[in-house]
Amino acid sequence: MAGIPEVILRVESLFSKFPGIGRKSARRIAFYLMDREREDVVQVAEALIDLKDKITHCPVCNHITEKIPCDICAAVQRDESILCVVEDSMDVISLERTVSFKGKYHVLGGLISPLDGVGPDDLAIESLMVRLDKVKEVILAINPSVEGDTTSFYLSRMLRKFPVKVTRLARGIPIGGDLEYTDEATLARAIEGRIEIPNE
Amino acid sequence: MAGIPEVILRVESLFSKFPGIGRKSARRIAFYLMDREREDVVQVAEALIDLKDKITHCPVCNHITEKIPCDICAAVQRDESILCVVEDSMDVISLERTVSFKGKYHVLGGLISPLDGVGPDDLAIESLMVRLDKVKEVILAINPSVEGDTTSFYLSRMLRKFPVKVTRLARGIPIGGDLEYTDEATLARAIEGRIEIPNE
Repeated sequence: MAGIPEVILRVESLFSKFPGIGRKSARRIAFYLMDREREDVVQVAEALIDLKDKITHCPVCNHITEKIPCDICAAVQRDESILCVVEDSMDVISLERTVSFKGKYHVLGGLISPLDGVGPDDLAIESLMVRLDKVKEVILAINPSVEGDTTSFYLSRMLRKFPVKVTRLARGIPIGGDLEYTDEATLARAIEGRIEIPNE
Repeated sequence: MAGIPEVILRVESLFSKFPGIGRKSARRIAFYLMDREREDVVQVAEALIDLKDKITHCPVCNHITEKIPCDICAAVQRDESILCVVEDSMDVISLERTVSFKGKYHVLGGLISPLDGVGPDDLAIESLMVRLDKVKEVILAINPSVEGDTTSFYLSRMLRKFPVKVTRLARGIPIGGDLEYTDEATLARAIEGRIEIPNE
């Protein structure tokens, strides 16, 4: 297009591939960066390269990390008898933010999805099984979707061979949620999983 | 925070300064880039550096460009007797997208804003005045805001000394707009600027 320097179009087209960024946001970002100091832009560029060069996967839990083993695997104060199995590293970060889980994690690196050609061998399941020695409970913290349920089912079958308790996250009405606006499936699960109020 | 590699936090904090990007989107982008090939990420990093190194301002019209003079100033088929004055290069790009303006541009590089300490001398007004030789019409395509109106007023006073017609963009109901949902100020301007329907 006339009037737009090629490099701006290039940044636009690269940025508009990012999740959640459209063409217009990409252009606004290009203009924003153009107005920054050169050293600020260099800092962004370097951080991106570092992202590829410094990040690796922990050989124990498969979580992303800069160190081997990762901070969580290395933390001696964490309870290694409880293992929380998740789909990806984003889930570890979300759960860590709650500051309520003190066990360890195992990152599958995906979900079983025959349609996408992802089978159990493509996931970090082998490395999960060899970790079960000191584990008493495995929490399957996997999203409820077709692939998630398939993966949970597969894992729970595999885990039967080991002397571990297998649990899943509770489902129900989210905190701050309203009965009126909760979908039927969630409401049904909330009724199913109802908890007795102790008679005090 | 435990469990998140430092470089991801760094990318997050840099990206969340970008316009329209919050902390969560920044994290999603960091994870997206981590999953790309190294060469793709290098391409993004290089494009950012190019943005700083290749882009300059056209000495004639002050629009961003990789060449001197810029494509628009260099285009002989464009009508140099009509000059469209805009706040910034984003506006040039927006107007170019309409493919309906065939004149040339002049980018002020901001608006007069005493509160922010921006006076006429901080804008490309001097370089506008020296361009008026062959110009017959100056269109003030400046956003209607306190600063915009101040700048338009200042420029129209300055331009009185020259034998040029000074115009501004029409205001009214946008195409696809609905009377019911148009704000009062816009409606008032639309009534004020009503146009007679020719009796055919």
